[in-house]
Amino acid sequence: MEQKTMKALVYHGPGEISLDDVPVPHIQKPTDVILKVTLSAICGSDVHIIEGHTPVKPPKIVGHEFCGEVVEIGSAVKKLKVGNKVAVSCIAYCGECYYCKNNNHVHCIGSDAACFGTQGNLDGAQAEYIRLPYAENYSYIIPEGMTEEDVLFVGDILSTGYYAAKKANIKPGDTIVVIGTGPVGMCAMETAKLFGPAKIIAVNRNQERLNYALECGIADIGLNPKKVDVVEEVRKLTDGHGADCVIEAMGIEQTFTTAIEAVKVGGTVSTVGVYSQPFLLQMQNYWMKNLTLNWGFVTVEHIPALIKLIQGGKINTKYLITHKAPLNDIVKGYDVFKNRKENCIKWLITPYER
Amino acid sequence: MEQKTMKALVYHGPGEISLDDVPVPHIQKPTDVILKVTLSAICGSDVHIIEGHTPVKPPKIVGHEFCGEVVEIGSAVKKLKVGNKVAVSCIAYCGECYYCKNNNHVHCIGSDAACFGTQGNLDGAQAEYIRLPYAENYSYIIPEGMTEEDVLFVGDILSTGYYAAKKANIKPGDTIVVIGTGPVGMCAMETAKLFGPAKIIAVNRNQERLNYALECGIADIGLNPKKVDVVEEVRKLTDGHGADCVIEAMGIEQTFTTAIEAVKVGGTVSTVGVYSQPFLLQMQNYWMKNLTLNWGFVTVEHIPALIKLIQGGKINTKYLITHKAPLNDIVKGYDVFKNRKENCIKWLITPYER
Amino acid sequence: MEQKTMKALVYHGPGEISLDDVPVPHIQKPTDVILKVTLSAICGSDVHIIEGHTPVKPPKIVGHEFCGEVVEIGSAVKKLKVGNKVAVSCIAYCGECYYCKNNNHVHCIGSDAACFGTQGNLDGAQAEYIRLPYAENYSYIIPEGMTEEDVLFVGDILSTGYYAAKKANIKPGDTIVVIGTGPVGMCAMETAKLFGPAKIIAVNRNQERLNYALECGIADIGLNPKKVDVVEEVRKLTDGHGADCVIEAMGIEQTFTTAIEAVKVGGTVSTVGVYSQPFLLQMQNYWMKNLTLNWGFVTVEHIPALIKLIQGGKINTKYLITHKAPLNDIVKGYDVFKNRKENCIKWLITPYER
Amino acid sequence: MEQKTMKALVYHGPGEISLDDVPVPHIQKPTDVILKVTLSAICGSDVHIIEGHTPVKPPKIVGHEFCGEVVEIGSAVKKLKVGNKVAVSCIAYCGECYYCKNNNHVHCIGSDAACFGTQGNLDGAQAEYIRLPYAENYSYIIPEGMTEEDVLFVGDILSTGYYAAKKANIKPGDTIVVIGTGPVGMCAMETAKLFGPAKIIAVNRNQERLNYALECGIADIGLNPKKVDVVEEVRKLTDGHGADCVIEAMGIEQTFTTAIEAVKVGGTVSTVGVYSQPFLLQMQNYWMKNLTLNWGFVTVEHIPALIKLIQGGKINTKYLITHKAPLNDIVKGYDVFKNRKENCIKWLITPYER
Repeated sequence: MEQKTMKALVYHGPGEISLDDVPVPHIQKPTDVILKVTLSAICGSDVHIIEGHTPVKPPKIVGHEFCGEVVEIGSAVKKLKVGNKVAVSCIAYCGECYYCKNNNHVHCIGSDAACFGTQGNLDGAQAEYIRLPYAENYSYIIPEGMTEEDVLFVGDILSTGYYAAKKANIKPGDTIVVIGTGPVGMCAMETAKLFGPAKIIAVNRNQERLNYALECGIADIGLNPKKVDVVEEVRKLTDGHGADCVIEAMGIEQTFTTAIEAVKVGGTVSTVGVYSQPFLLQMQNYWMKNLTLNWGFVTVEHIPALIKLIQGGKINTKYLITHKAPLNDIVKGYDVFKNRKENCIKWLITPYER
Repeated sequence: MEQKTMKALVYHGPGEISLDDVPVPHIQKPTDVILKVTLSAICGSDVHIIEGHTPVKPPKIVGHEFCGEVVEIGSAVKKLKVGNKVAVSCIAYCGECYYCKNNNHVHCIGSDAACFGTQGNLDGAQAEYIRLPYAENYSYIIPEGMTEEDVLFVGDILSTGYYAAKKANIKPGDTIVVIGTGPVGMCAMETAKLFGPAKIIAVNRNQERLNYALECGIADIGLNPKKVDVVEEVRKLTDGHGADCVIEAMGIEQTFTTAIEAVKVGGTVSTVGVYSQPFLLQMQNYWMKNLTLNWGFVTVEHIPALIKLIQGGKINTKYLITHKAPLNDIVKGYDVFKNRKENCIKWLITPYER
Repeated sequence: MEQKTMKALVYHGPGEISLDDVPVPHIQKPTDVILKVTLSAICGSDVHIIEGHTPVKPPKIVGHEFCGEVVEIGSAVKKLKVGNKVAVSCIAYCGECYYCKNNNHVHCIGSDAACFGTQGNLDGAQAEYIRLPYAENYSYIIPEGMTEEDVLFVGDILSTGYYAAKKANIKPGDTIVVIGTGPVGMCAMETAKLFGPAKIIAVNRNQERLNYALECGIADIGLNPKKVDVVEEVRKLTDGHGADCVIEAMGIEQTFTTAIEAVKVGGTVSTVGVYSQPFLLQMQNYWMKNLTLNWGFVTVEHIPALIKLIQGGKINTKYLITHKAPLNDIVKGYDVFKNRKENCIKWLITPYER
Repeated sequence: MEQKTMKALVYHGPGEISLDDVPVPHIQKPTDVILKVTLSAICGSDVHIIEGHTPVKPPKIVGHEFCGEVVEIGSAVKKLKVGNKVAVSCIAYCGECYYCKNNNHVHCIGSDAACFGTQGNLDGAQAEYIRLPYAENYSYIIPEGMTEEDVLFVGDILSTGYYAAKKANIKPGDTIVVIGTGPVGMCAMETAKLFGPAKIIAVNRNQERLNYALECGIADIGLNPKKVDVVEEVRKLTDGHGADCVIEAMGIEQTFTTAIEAVKVGGTVSTVGVYSQPFLLQMQNYWMKNLTLNWGFVTVEHIPALIKLIQGGKINTKYLITHKAPLNDIVKGYDVFKNRKENCIKWLITPYER
């Protein structure tokens, strides 16, 4: 690579971002790979960073949802070759520590492990190039016939949605509720169908988004808490028993409580919300319900399965892509995305155009 | 009921069937229900009976796939009412014996337990009326808005196909093989999707049936053993590893062997074939493969879930219905069905027309 | 039965109990059985009742842990005979409602369903006789060679402990923590070994009770929160990772929080505490831990398995029996039990002596 | 290491073994480790090799059950240090291939992967030193306070027995049958208790061995097919239903058939027999039994859990050790072991004495 500097979206402190010229990353360790970023996206957690809610030390290149082309490989890299196009996990992990051995890769304690472009030492993908430590652990060659758009979301929101769906213990014939129809909630609905529910009930206060989930065919019924009592409606739709499973994808007390109340006795609540505050749990009302509650954040072990499912036409996330523009426009992209202008769900970033 | 006699298809011995006038059944025990049969079907195992391969003592009214309307109820019947239209399990079971308590209803040892119209003491459903002992255990009111055609198969072939699919241990993203595209094989493919496979490979020697499975959208790929080496093709389609899961729905040595060989190391073979002969198992070649092999016949505990899935539009079996005629034409129906004339998959029987 | 009145421990309002003469119960419905109570016990929840913390309407005969001899049977009773000695679930359930069909018997909505001697309509077992509605659903004949003392606890605390252990998702080789060494906590330890843990760590503030758990051989290590930082000690005992599974058997904020903090990333917390107050959940600290949390109260479906395990010498609860006296002394028994005098763990009640 | 040659048991062709002087192995690849063998054992499959039944190319050093001390490490070895004492899997695996990634390490296709001292390229452990390729994948430092004798069997027979027990789907309270009381069968019984069976029935034609299993406390009941009809006796012991689970550890038609017939409807048969011949499966008699059949050979992923269980005193295999002598006596050891002289179960080999 002759290029010495590149364009990158840099976080300089709360509220301050700019498209800067920064040094192109280079191989630092034998297991590293340098990727030319061919497609990336803005995620809700990027907004948390640039608004200063996530404790990230500036300056930092942001971005952790991306695909790219291998342009340089370390000496210990065996399977990846220059020119390969890959889908990438949002988390770099070592593959050897206790957590990795126990399929908790997102808790990896390897020295270079981190989510790209957020806390930890790794720069992000809203740039022209990115360095991937331990690259072979979590880079997946995009199968022939598939595009970056097909697989862009496998590394973060689709894996998160799938984790939520899997942990909901859905059995064929179940009625499930998904609270939150943001990108993760929509991915949860998309992948919930892999477990055979008879009915998916989407819950959201944003009626347009709710309608869109119904239009996309990922939900069968939409409930808007501004208009109806969700718990009561779910009861009506389930012969009075409550939903078999509830997926909570918001992360606040109110939706958590709705989840616990809308689920049936003996049911499961799966929550992938990013909780930022403590809340009061009315356990005296719930302890007799014999519930299972699963919580957590993205697991990345199912990326190969998700790619196969997309390739086989069994799942699809293209309806999430509402906007797409070159890296040149990313500052505008943040404005549109975070303020939900133009019904933006996901803003995609193509390479910088000179 | 004033009617004293009714029409019924009676088995009189190998090769001998006729549409006879027989007495209308009546309530014998407090938990009995008499059903007017509103829709039934001819099943492959009915053919086994009338050809003399299943040891059934004539005379016997045949038929165990059916729906009907409740016309009379015993004194202990609580939930079913005269006028209810119901879908029915092919097996009558007591609900109280060791096997019923352990979800092996098909092995029920209750004195009146049996599969309708075959071995055991119960007459079948290819008639105008039928007596259901222990009726409330296995009769499901057809939900409003649904028809008999929607739910006809839940009591036997759809439950069998679902059992096969469930026992195949399919995980999201798997590649599965289904050997046999008869009605049960097709039901296995239809319900396999409830477990999220990325790819379903159908195997059959009848190219027309194979094509039909592809047309119906229940299979992604069709392999005809007359044209290709199935095991080799499956390997090619799975990076050399073999299928994650194989469902065998034929019940002969050759297809069993194909199943064992086409599955990957550590995979699962689920077989719902009706085996009629012993066969040589080349265990010296297979013992190192670390396989799971599940076998058995219809389980009926999932009928309510299957009805919900049909109601929710998530599964559908209408493409199996190729023929439909009143009970008057049933003898012709057997000829068409058993000889696979006119590409017959399922021959349905509507009430006798006077 | 000629006897018209019997002795019974009657709750007359908060703090008021007495051994009264009351009418002997009789068969009210065909599925009823009348039992002569041959052995019963005082439970912690009985204390909640007599102290007025559980909303029970006086007068009420208390007691739900018991065995007895069948002295009268209803006309629909088939398997139980007069003279049978039985172990009994603490919950009477109908076996036919939605909850019973879904193995949530403790949530049964049958008109006569309840926990004996507490809320609901059923009188309790601290009496000479008791009426069991739906008796055959939950009465288990004591196998030959076994005594009432062997099986007394299967109906409540042993089933609760087993539920806690089962829901803890213990895998062979795991290190588990059990918080609380009251009767339920001790039953959880006793049954946890059925799932193959390598190490059981007991936690309790009462050092004598902790020592007793070690002496009984049900715990390998004892931690007293008065003396050590439990979370830190558990970390030390698990290479810094935390316990694989934690069973919480107290039901207060402090122990709940200890459980969430002592468990490893990706682990399971199973709580069978009876929570009486809301509490603050510091979810912002825990949401990334990818946990499973199971909660609930007694499930009774495993009673037959528990009896077999006791019979086979694989589990044993006799060390819980510290006191035993006739019904005549029950008022004293409540005093000893609730004030933990004489190191009382369980106070057993034998028949009234005239 | 200055030593240039060492003593080793070498297979020279069917029936021909001798204790030879051979070159000491050395590091060949960066991930290699050289071990001084401090304890090893003779296994039944070694006998298959030396008798010429397993196609092994002579000359070959035999032996795959062993512990040792690290004496030399390759340049890429990170965690193991010279002087560490380790327990070792009988299989060397790469950790990176498709099979390793899917927990089928025993099917590893890495170029150096093999079971030590049998087919494949690796020499065995009945020698003074052994080379371990990919050593860190499967070498476990023996915890302080534990001896080689404690952990010797974790690498092969205990892992095989555990695999058999795990795959038997044992639930707490079950009655299980173990056919075969050789070392693997005994390990299956030892580890079966980790899943909570109420009763373990051992089956063997050798009455002395059967008695020994009872004495060791790993079986509750012994059945000798020479004296009783095993299937009938199992029925009697299970209220006529058959065993919940059967573990088959012999690998011949007769015991396989007994297993299928002794198990209950809906039960599981787990077989770890090494089948050397095809056999007739009377599937026409069994297809209705709704069984699960699991088969395979050693899985090595549970070695760390097994070590923890031994350390915690929860399992123990010392009763298998009937003989122990230095490498000098190994030829005699083969004679005693293979002919079951002196009630030999396991013959252990300590280092060569000069």
